[in-house]
Amino acid sequence: MRTVVVTGAHGFLGRHVARRFARAGWEVTGIGHGYWSQSELAAYGISFWHTSDVSLEALVTYAGEPDIIVHCAGSGSVSFSIAHPHEDYARTVATTASVLEYVRLHSASTKLIYPSSAAVYGVAQRLPIAEADPLEPASPYGVHKAMAEMLCRSYASSFGLVVGIARLFSVYGEGLKKQLLWDACNKVAHGDATFFGSGAELRDWLHADDAADLLYTIAERTERHCLTINGGSGEGVPVSDILEAIFEYSNAELQPKFSGQSRAGDPPGYQADMTLATQLGWKPRVPWRDGVRRYVQWFSERSE
Amino acid sequence: MRTVVVTGAHGFLGRHVARRFARAGWEVTGIGHGYWSQSELAAYGISFWHTSDVSLEALVTYAGEPDIIVHCAGSGSVSFSIAHPHEDYARTVATTASVLEYVRLHSASTKLIYPSSAAVYGVAQRLPIAEADPLEPASPYGVHKAMAEMLCRSYASSFGLVVGIARLFSVYGEGLKKQLLWDACNKVAHGDATFFGSGAELRDWLHADDAADLLYTIAERTERHCLTINGGSGEGVPVSDILEAIFEYSNAELQPKFSGQSRAGDPPGYQADMTLATQLGWKPRVPWRDGVRRYVQWFSERSE
Repeated sequence: MRTVVVTGAHGFLGRHVARRFARAGWEVTGIGHGYWSQSELAAYGISFWHTSDVSLEALVTYAGEPDIIVHCAGSGSVSFSIAHPHEDYARTVATTASVLEYVRLHSASTKLIYPSSAAVYGVAQRLPIAEADPLEPASPYGVHKAMAEMLCRSYASSFGLVVGIARLFSVYGEGLKKQLLWDACNKVAHGDATFFGSGAELRDWLHADDAADLLYTIAERTERHCLTINGGSGEGVPVSDILEAIFEYSNAELQPKFSGQSRAGDPPGYQADMTLATQLGWKPRVPWRDGVRRYVQWFSERSE
Repeated sequence: MRTVVVTGAHGFLGRHVARRFARAGWEVTGIGHGYWSQSELAAYGISFWHTSDVSLEALVTYAGEPDIIVHCAGSGSVSFSIAHPHEDYARTVATTASVLEYVRLHSASTKLIYPSSAAVYGVAQRLPIAEADPLEPASPYGVHKAMAEMLCRSYASSFGLVVGIARLFSVYGEGLKKQLLWDACNKVAHGDATFFGSGAELRDWLHADDAADLLYTIAERTERHCLTINGGSGEGVPVSDILEAIFEYSNAELQPKFSGQSRAGDPPGYQADMTLATQLGWKPRVPWRDGVRRYVQWFSERSE
């Protein structure tokens, strides 16, 4: 039975990744913070759960010598990184340093899969964004993700680790209690319809099921020392289209309005060039309208 | 009286920096590891010395609110970084993260001066190397220095810190007990004359007195959020020229010979484009032949 360790498995992306591997027959060990009920552990296919920081010591204690580590632990918020940059650094960069050193010292045949972020590109000069485009992150969050990637590439080239990196664009899905869809559903529920920005900002939406599937595909296929691949749908969708869909599926009487103001660190446009992932044989399965409909459905059921 | 904190002040670069500021009338506090005699502390102009790791806690305890922090603590060896990459990361990246967070939280008007390294450029595509050239570090040491720089720029752009970075090329001088000059003097003393490489590799030599003076100049002049400047002489000197000078000043009967083999992480050529530093009004004062002569003199006196 093949084995995978998912750090941060209690988080939004982590639990989708755990479930993806479990459904393919892998034995899944999770390390991180968060409380699980037994039924939740079963639902996400997690055989072993260890509540711990992701440190070299914890990995020595709990990780064993898995075929794969997917390092989902880490910060996931631009605004948190601006409020608490050192903590964001510790969660993203220092944990990645520990995982890499663990693999180098204790489990050299383990492949490491790292979910990075499109935030490493910063304000893109052109769309769609390809993997070779310049990295000019515009927030501490994006800087820390770029630093974690640099460490991955360094361990791959200097020590022969096999690492795969997916730069995930706007990952969303049922269960995500932050970011645009969550804020929008809450605003609709409170009769508020005003949003930051112009509405014309492009985002490339990727359902968490598809994101997990991409990480799984990279884990299966990576043999190069540090494969780095965009994780999006390839489609740039204006924020206004997403919000109009949310309002429609919520049966809201209002229409979204835009303040024209943008927030610090929010880049104007994101759209992934998905050539490399397509060459790997991967493609997303959840069209954004279906994903948004499922999200609104989940939100309304949890409110009832 | 203006105040400066020098981390890693017991190190080779740190003690030259401490002395440079002290001679200009600054009160110097040092934090780091290493044993000082009272006469050494006086010789390098260090008023207060605290033996400690460079952590947020240590800085809160010892640093106060200085006008300047020069963060000289950190790793200084490519070969160490290959043998101990996680420790190298901790010394270089984690300490820089702590210093930046200290300034952000506790001493926002402090300017931070960071001695980085030409190793961030990796194998240069063209010489001389300018600051805007691509960063493609070829060793863990270079990667960690580049990561520390990224953090500096992130804190400067997101939190308004004033940071100055000098990318130092081959810093040397009396007292340096590692790297080419040290190895060469020891080889001469043991009748060995064989060296790695072809001898044609270019290096840009900067005497530690000049390096300290450049850091001092940047501290005086930096008002931009993250000024990044090369620190070299502007002259690319073949390794064979340096070694021939060492052999000559040592009155050795042998001539240096080259194995043709290069070591991992050793790039073939380094020469700094010093336009930006020149525009700041700085220039080096120690020609490399004078510096090498002083080094050989120091080495022979300490052997006697």
